[in-house]
Amino acid sequence: MCRWLAYSGTPVLLEDVLYKPEHSLIDQSLHSRLGVETTNGDGFGVGWYGQDACTPAIVRDTSPAWNNRNLREIANHVRSGLFFAHVRASTGTAVQQTNSHPFRHGRWMWMHNGAITDYHRLRRDLCLAIDPALFSSIEGSTDSEVMFYLAITFGLDQDAPAAVAQMAGLVERLGAERGVEFPLQMTIAVTDSERLWAFRYSSEGNSRSLFYSSRADTVRALHPDLEFVRELSDETRIVVSEPLRDLPGLWKELPESSYSVVQPGSDVLLPFVPQQPG
Amino acid sequence: MCRWLAYSGTPVLLEDVLYKPEHSLIDQSLHSRLGVETTNGDGFGVGWYGQDACTPAIVRDTSPAWNNRNLREIANHVRSGLFFAHVRASTGTAVQQTNSHPFRHGRWMWMHNGAITDYHRLRRDLCLAIDPALFSSIEGSTDSEVMFYLAITFGLDQDAPAAVAQMAGLVERLGAERGVEFPLQMTIAVTDSERLWAFRYSSEGNSRSLFYSSRADTVRALHPDLEFVRELSDETRIVVSEPLRDLPGLWKELPESSYSVVQPGSDVLLPFVPQQPG
Amino acid sequence: MCRWLAYSGTPVLLEDVLYKPEHSLIDQSLHSRLGVETTNGDGFGVGWYGQDACTPAIVRDTSPAWNNRNLREIANHVRSGLFFAHVRASTGTAVQQTNSHPFRHGRWMWMHNGAITDYHRLRRDLCLAIDPALFSSIEGSTDSEVMFYLAITFGLDQDAPAAVAQMAGLVERLGAERGVEFPLQMTIAVTDSERLWAFRYSSEGNSRSLFYSSRADTVRALHPDLEFVRELSDETRIVVSEPLRDLPGLWKELPESSYSVVQPGSDVLLPFVPQQPG
Amino acid sequence: MCRWLAYSGTPVLLEDVLYKPEHSLIDQSLHSRLGVETTNGDGFGVGWYGQDACTPAIVRDTSPAWNNRNLREIANHVRSGLFFAHVRASTGTAVQQTNSHPFRHGRWMWMHNGAITDYHRLRRDLCLAIDPALFSSIEGSTDSEVMFYLAITFGLDQDAPAAVAQMAGLVERLGAERGVEFPLQMTIAVTDSERLWAFRYSSEGNSRSLFYSSRADTVRALHPDLEFVRELSDETRIVVSEPLRDLPGLWKELPESSYSVVQPGSDVLLPFVPQQPG
Repeated sequence: MCRWLAYSGTPVLLEDVLYKPEHSLIDQSLHSRLGVETTNGDGFGVGWYGQDACTPAIVRDTSPAWNNRNLREIANHVRSGLFFAHVRASTGTAVQQTNSHPFRHGRWMWMHNGAITDYHRLRRDLCLAIDPALFSSIEGSTDSEVMFYLAITFGLDQDAPAAVAQMAGLVERLGAERGVEFPLQMTIAVTDSERLWAFRYSSEGNSRSLFYSSRADTVRALHPDLEFVRELSDETRIVVSEPLRDLPGLWKELPESSYSVVQPGSDVLLPFVPQQPG
Repeated sequence: MCRWLAYSGTPVLLEDVLYKPEHSLIDQSLHSRLGVETTNGDGFGVGWYGQDACTPAIVRDTSPAWNNRNLREIANHVRSGLFFAHVRASTGTAVQQTNSHPFRHGRWMWMHNGAITDYHRLRRDLCLAIDPALFSSIEGSTDSEVMFYLAITFGLDQDAPAAVAQMAGLVERLGAERGVEFPLQMTIAVTDSERLWAFRYSSEGNSRSLFYSSRADTVRALHPDLEFVRELSDETRIVVSEPLRDLPGLWKELPESSYSVVQPGSDVLLPFVPQQPG
Repeated sequence: MCRWLAYSGTPVLLEDVLYKPEHSLIDQSLHSRLGVETTNGDGFGVGWYGQDACTPAIVRDTSPAWNNRNLREIANHVRSGLFFAHVRASTGTAVQQTNSHPFRHGRWMWMHNGAITDYHRLRRDLCLAIDPALFSSIEGSTDSEVMFYLAITFGLDQDAPAAVAQMAGLVERLGAERGVEFPLQMTIAVTDSERLWAFRYSSEGNSRSLFYSSRADTVRALHPDLEFVRELSDETRIVVSEPLRDLPGLWKELPESSYSVVQPGSDVLLPFVPQQPG
Repeated sequence: MCRWLAYSGTPVLLEDVLYKPEHSLIDQSLHSRLGVETTNGDGFGVGWYGQDACTPAIVRDTSPAWNNRNLREIANHVRSGLFFAHVRASTGTAVQQTNSHPFRHGRWMWMHNGAITDYHRLRRDLCLAIDPALFSSIEGSTDSEVMFYLAITFGLDQDAPAAVAQMAGLVERLGAERGVEFPLQMTIAVTDSERLWAFRYSSEGNSRSLFYSSRADTVRALHPDLEFVRELSDETRIVVSEPLRDLPGLWKELPESSYSVVQPGSDVLLPFVPQQPG
């Protein structure tokens, strides 16, 4: 399994979010508390949108995040208002750049924690369900990348939650056909450069943890001494596999089988139900 | 494109073949003379059979062969009577360990120089033709790995030349269906730990170069001062993308559209003709 | 030996300079024309100053520049008005991140092409001449890094040309004492985030090539169709080991034993003479 | 800190020792129990002597041992009667191949767990004490490599324990001069291809753990069901930072401030006392 973080809000130096918090994502690469594995040292990735570009930059490597100097250099110098970061714990698949998250397609960016159970038995049929025009874009061997291309196939560009629901529905159906008891375990972040969707779901109803930060104005009221939050817009949000700091009122858990939309104006929290692809 | 070398015969230190000749494969990684690219710096691999093991060891990396210290250490200390080595020049696909040659399946080992033209247009159909039970073994994104699994699907274990011919036949047919003028360009080495097959073929009848060494007794007669050959059995053979030394009588070119079998007793040289899979 | 590029002027996307020119630095990593080696595939580095930071970001790796995807991502998304890039051809020293250029110390950045002859015989004495307080900052095993710390020791911060001259003087003197015929071969770029110095010198008076671009207004007058130059300030300069494009009037060679200063207002071109450290 | 293992005895496949035990060194790279750090993911190395070679092969990398496929390939195919393996947890120094253990000089091999306290303050003086003829062999930036060259300087080739004692004595003296309270913390393995010395020492008398296996005949008597031990000569020994299996009678702790010699005939256990270099 893995740990990830998605940030949306006031542009900040990446290091303020990735390195400075006491239980930062970089720290989680070495000492995860809530993950299935305590160590997430099988590669990492960071993706960010710049000021003018609507295509994200994606830097991924196979080394552990905690000792990667280039990641620190980038984090110390790059400022962004929308970025993803991911530290990987492989469950056996190759440790290679193309298996590190986030994945990109046009202006879209995607990352995942979890797994498709018995993936080797479902992989071929899942690949066949991908739009043939996209098939050749597959570069790695993870379930996560295939899930991304399935979501694109099912209309991510038109209706992101529906596309992810159909991807999940397909996994559930194929899994059931093959006798896989709990086919899907996932927390997913996906963005089109403007909105950010975060999904939490598992077949067994016991999903990997996922938290989102409270509104910055709420946090400021609770913790007036917390320097980092002072400059942030009220709508700034961080979504994380596990909390970066242990402070009351800072984090809320995303409920089982639900998804949230981080967007200009009010955010949204809705139930997530897999659907059969049309 | 790439450069490769296959050795079969008297067990030797890998360095005697990989590093010591004046225009060795390691030198070819930096200064190829006959290749499409002069530099083959996008990863390398070496695979060897030990004394008792019939499964080969395979060490592959993404760095250039010429500066890889671990390759030199292994070559300086490992002795083998059957080994493959490959230096890669990517034509765009990711530089990752799983895209480096040789590939392995059970006791089989495979490496390739060449390309399937417009591979992105044929990739999906080629993948679909792979035995579903093997599909999940695909780890990289090269045409070479898919060609290997197709050959296994078509019975490599029973009749290697027929299986490779069917693989080539499928590529030709799918290419023709998609309007690809010259779909296949290949030199391939494959072994089952006992015999070594080397294939040279291209749709356009203008294949990448491939050479095999003369019998060691012939070489000894011609070049009595050539130290390395003195200890080799008469049947020892080296098959290479380009000659390791410029000495008369040392190398013979494999003819267009042909394959050779290096095996105990007389070697064989036969025409290669793609076939339609049954 | 190596190839390098230093840019100072109107902020641009790094890719406009590093990738887009026909004979770009990335192309030179694979096909250098004027270098001692045609291939510069033993690591690379890029360093840039951001808008507010006076400390540069430095991203370095051991892979070839031509196949490094992270370098391309950064180049596609980072904009800077002062940056260095370097592709390395090792002459035997380890291929490791700490041997890739540029090097950094505080706000200073340094890169080098060339070598100290018989460095293994001079290394210890050169290291001893480094300010003891800096000795522990040495992380790699190159002559280039030691030359940098010597220049800092000799007052780079106060008078950069004098400090580099004393570094060169020390190498010349120690080389002469050890009977090394031509101890030093160097082209060096160094910056403090505001000014950029470029040095060309060798003991034998036959230095590696070094070129600087003509003033942008001159280039625009000569080549009104050259799109890239249109947006650049007149004072924008590029200093390179070898020209990026073959166009008349675009590049001037830095004379033997000279250095130039790229700075606000008029640039300066002066003779370079090694000096004995005080 | 780090974890290491040294094996001397009946030639075995490296995997039998490095991978198969339940709490193997590879497992310790991910889940160390007795180490200062639970994760040792900042590179690894393995060094082995072959049948005829008295110079060891050394394969080192910067990736974690647990996910390195080349290490597993080598371990599955290489058989040796004397080998070292090391997994590294950097305390800040660069993660680079030349900082991974073991280190080699001629037929000698060396690895270390521990640290010189405030090394940045002692590094220069320690480097100056190295035989000038060896100075240029330094490739990395670790204290461990410098300790090795000091031991060579002090006559490792003539009297290994005395040379290591003088190295430790120098560190103690320089540390005391600089006001470092407890300058040295070390467990060291060193071999000349025939004998194996293991040292355990720290200035504060609270050294990192070090264990050696009981004689194979004793282990067989205690655990007749333990398959691996059946084929081993009585004198086969494993020295480890932490036990590979939790079985009574299998491991003995090396006492504080002592060293052992594994050699043909009786092994030796002696007190270790730092000495001033002559």
